[in-house]
Amino acid sequence: MSLEFADPKSLDHEAIEEGETFAPRFDAHGLITVVTVEDGSGDVLMVANMNVEALALTLQTNIAHYWSRSRKAIWKKGETSGELQELVELRTDCDQDCLVMVVRQTGRGAACHTGRKSCFYRRVANKDGVVGLQDLGMPVLFNPQDIYGK
Amino acid sequence: MSLEFADPKSLDHEAIEEGETFAPRFDAHGLITVVTVEDGSGDVLMVANMNVEALALTLQTNIAHYWSRSRKAIWKKGETSGELQELVELRTDCDQDCLVMVVRQTGRGAACHTGRKSCFYRRVANKDGVVGLQDLGMPVLFNPQDIYGK
Repeated sequence: MSLEFADPKSLDHEAIEEGETFAPRFDAHGLITVVTVEDGSGDVLMVANMNVEALALTLQTNIAHYWSRSRKAIWKKGETSGELQELVELRTDCDQDCLVMVVRQTGRGAACHTGRKSCFYRRVANKDGVVGLQDLGMPVLFNPQDIYGK
Repeated sequence: MSLEFADPKSLDHEAIEEGETFAPRFDAHGLITVVTVEDGSGDVLMVANMNVEALALTLQTNIAHYWSRSRKAIWKKGETSGELQELVELRTDCDQDCLVMVVRQTGRGAACHTGRKSCFYRRVANKDGVVGLQDLGMPVLFNPQDIYGK
């Protein structure tokens, strides 16, 4: 049996922002943005989306599930790579249209498909109006070719 | 003179993911998601959007600017409340369609319009299939009515 969530349209502004009813506000595509952070360090690992089914599966199984916009399918993170994410805590923001998910990253500790711990491995540098990227030197924990064959 | 950014369509997959060219991928509405985190603690303060102008203004002034979808206008965060955010570091993710922005939160230290440090002040709790929200007890640092008059 799938979990059900309240419809935000059924709640007033005060109830959405200060209340105890979870009424996730999915966008026009039925998706909500999720910021996944590492338990302990609080480092941002990745940002992805959930639809209502992925959100329910995550809460029911305590394993992170997302919606893959490219594959148009439920995406059990780590199903291919072994890098499953165990749910520690889920938080909602003031207007309930965004989530922060605290996880324990299993496997080799790489949330990013490039093999790095985090997707945010480059800094934007603005030097006198010339903007470029600088690699932060995050270790590559697995070879994507070995896992994804490309 | 506004900063200009590369067009992601001009780059191949490898250059987008591993290169030194910053080519932010704005969505169909011309927006990119930004996760704003506090310098030092790494705590997620808020999630918002930038358009190309807000991104350029942020990099040029070192003060966070967003795009307000509700007001349809550039939103210099803290202009009304005094809670300006000073840019410490901007990071992009692997496919350059999301940013993490590390900031020093000025003023009373409240990024959320409810007066709290972070917008993520409630936890989603699943107790035997009944899902609700629990307040994490984050202090309210200003009274929104005093600032926004509502």
